[in-house]
Amino acid sequence: MKKAIQDLYPESLAHCYGCGKNNPAGHQLKTYLEGDTTIAHFLPDEKYTALPGSVYGGLIASMLDCHGTGSAAAFACQAEGITLDQAVIPVRCVTASLKVDFKAPVPMGVDLELTGQLKHIDGRKIWVDMSLSARGVLCATGEILAIRLKEEV
Amino acid sequence: MKKAIQDLYPESLAHCYGCGKNNPAGHQLKTYLEGDTTIAHFLPDEKYTALPGSVYGGLIASMLDCHGTGSAAAFACQAEGITLDQAVIPVRCVTASLKVDFKAPVPMGVDLELTGQLKHIDGRKIWVDMSLSARGVLCATGEILAIRLKEEV
Repeated sequence: MKKAIQDLYPESLAHCYGCGKNNPAGHQLKTYLEGDTTIAHFLPDEKYTALPGSVYGGLIASMLDCHGTGSAAAFACQAEGITLDQAVIPVRCVTASLKVDFKAPVPMGVDLELTGQLKHIDGRKIWVDMSLSARGVLCATGEILAIRLKEEV
Repeated sequence: MKKAIQDLYPESLAHCYGCGKNNPAGHQLKTYLEGDTTIAHFLPDEKYTALPGSVYGGLIASMLDCHGTGSAAAFACQAEGITLDQAVIPVRCVTASLKVDFKAPVPMGVDLELTGQLKHIDGRKIWVDMSLSARGVLCATGEILAIRLKEEV
C-alpha cells in the first residue's frame, strides 16, 4: 500500500501539528503522490468554525501549508529519482512563504480535497501550486515556496 | 477597560475557532487598537510543534489571519469614526487573500506579539500589513486583503 509523504519523514522531524505522524494531538494530514499531482483529503471537526456553517481560514491555511511542504518533498524526490517505496526519504522541507486565496466559503462537514502541482525547482527552493475543493467546488488556491532543509536527514 | 475587537463582533458572527469569544474550544485571539497600530499577544501550547522546538506554520498563519480580519475591522471603524467603546460594532470582515512570509523559526514557549498596520481601504476591501515577533525578533510578516461583509450587521 502506498505510504503518505509525511509518513516517510525522518522520525526526528515528524512532530508537526499539522501533519506529523509523531504528534498524536495533531491533524496528521496525509499527502500522496499520484503521477505528477499530489493529493490529500481532510474532514475538519465542527469546532473549526469560521462564520457558522463554514470552516475557518486558519485551518485552510494550515492544511495548505502542510500539503505544500509535503508536496515539495514529493516533487524533490521525483526530480531526483528517489523512490517513495522505502521507510524514510532524505528530504524534509519547511515553508518560506505561503499565499492563500479564498474563493468561496468552505462548507463544514464535507470531505476536502487538496491537490498540488510542481511549479519550479531551483536548488533547495521548491514552488508548488495548490487547490482546495469541496464537493468539486474550488474553495481556495495556495502557492508555497518551500525550502529543503540543508542537512542530509 | 479597552475591549478586544473580536469581543465587539455581533454574537452571531463570533464563533471563529481562531478568535471568536463564542467558540470555547478555540484560540480566542484578542486584537487591540492602539493609536494607528493593532496589537495581539499569543502563547502557543506546546502541542503546536513544527520541527521540535518551534511553532508550526499553520498556527502562525491562523493567528495572522484572525489578527488581520480583526485589524481590518478596527481600521474600518477608525476610518468612519465608529468608536470602539460600545457593545457591538457594525463591521465584520472575512479573508480574501493571506500571504505569510516566514523569516525565522518561531520559538516554542515564548509570548508572541502580532502587530497590524493599515495599508489601504477601498470600499469594502481593506489591506493590512502585519508582523509576528518573539522576544523582539521578527519571525514572520503577513499581508491580508480582508473584505467587509455587505450586510449591516
